[in-house]
Order: sequence, then structure tokens, then C-alpha cells
Amino acid sequence: MSQFENVTAVKKANIYFDGKVTSRTVVFPDGTKKTLGIMLPGEYEFGTDTKEIMEILAGELKVLLPGDSEWITISGEGEFTVPANAKFKLQIETVTDYCCSYIQE
Amino acid sequence: MSQFENVTAVKKANIYFDGKVTSRTVVFPDGTKKTLGIMLPGEYEFGTDTKEIMEILAGELKVLLPGDSEWITISGEGEFTVPANAKFKLQIETVTDYCCSYIQE
Repeated sequence: MSQFENVTAVKKANIYFDGKVTSRTVVFPDGTKKTLGIMLPGEYEFGTDTKEIMEILAGELKVLLPGDSEWITISGEGEFTVPANAKFKLQIETVTDYCCSYIQE
Repeated sequence: MSQFENVTAVKKANIYFDGKVTSRTVVFPDGTKKTLGIMLPGEYEFGTDTKEIMEILAGELKVLLPGDSEWITISGEGEFTVPANAKFKLQIETVTDYCCSYIQE
């Protein structure tokens, strides 16, 4: 799906790490939400509230998922899932475009 | 208006200047579009196709509008309009969140 129809787009950006990670929130008719974001090169740690499905639309990066000892490499497109209430690390090597889905369980 | 309802959000980002300027496109039911974007500190020149109304949601920046010799300072919130087929310059001093409306005339 290249676009999301009949959604509500929140005007103000979500800004983290001095603007090196930013996103926009999109809310769907069923109340679920996704964020469409950009990460610039750097190393970041994030924490989740809900389960998150991170779809990488473009970029070169490495991901360390909670409990793992080996980094996963994503080049171009990819996807990973992070459980609720967990922390994960990212090493962003090139400008990365992503879509994050928040899954209430 | 803090959010846009019943819109189509394009999934992939628009990426300029190595990711220092990025935006997401939102299309309205009447076919008009806006972009919601982030600019990181730096100096940029942009060209317009249509008339553009740039609403600054947050940020510290200076704008040089086409034909002007004096920079306009925006601190926090502000707005400026650029005619179609023109160039304008920006000096972004802090992370800047914006909403750009494209006006077909």
C-alpha cells in the first residue's frame, strides 16, 4: 500500500534526538495508529509501550532487538517487530524512511 | 486546526538535502495537497512550482523571499507566502516543523 486513505493526520511532528528522528502520526478509522518517520545517521535506543511493527521503506541500518546479542542488518526495505514494554537499539547508517504500526494486544 | 481529517497520507517520505529537509504529503478530498515537514539547521534554497503558503509550527529561522533584500525572522510560529515559479532561501537555526500548502491559481 503506497498511501493510507481516509485517515487523520496529526499536524505537529514528533521530534526526538534533536530532530535526528522525527515522525508524523496517522490515525485510522478503527482508531489504530501508525507513525511515518525519518531517522538520520546515528545510534539510538527506543522503548516501546505497545507492540510495534517497524516497516523500513528505505535505508541502511542495523537493529538490536530485545534479548538478542546479534544485530540484524536491513538494507533497502525490511521489517521487524518489537514486543510491548521493551527496548531496542538502532544503528542508522543512511537516511531511513519508516512506517511504525502500534499494535494493541 | 491541529489535525487533518479524511485525508490520504502518502507513505514514502520526500527527502531533500541528505535528509536534512524531509516531508510527508497529505492529499485532501478536494484534491489539494499539503506537506508536513521538518528542516534541520542549515541553509537551503527552494524553488516553487505553485504558490506556496508556509506555516511554521515551531522553529527559529530566517527567510529571504524572492525579490527581497532583507531576511524575515520567524521565532516559534509564523507564516509566509511564496509566489509560483520563484526561489526563496531559508536559514534554519533550530529544528523547524512546518506545514506547506500548495495553491493552484
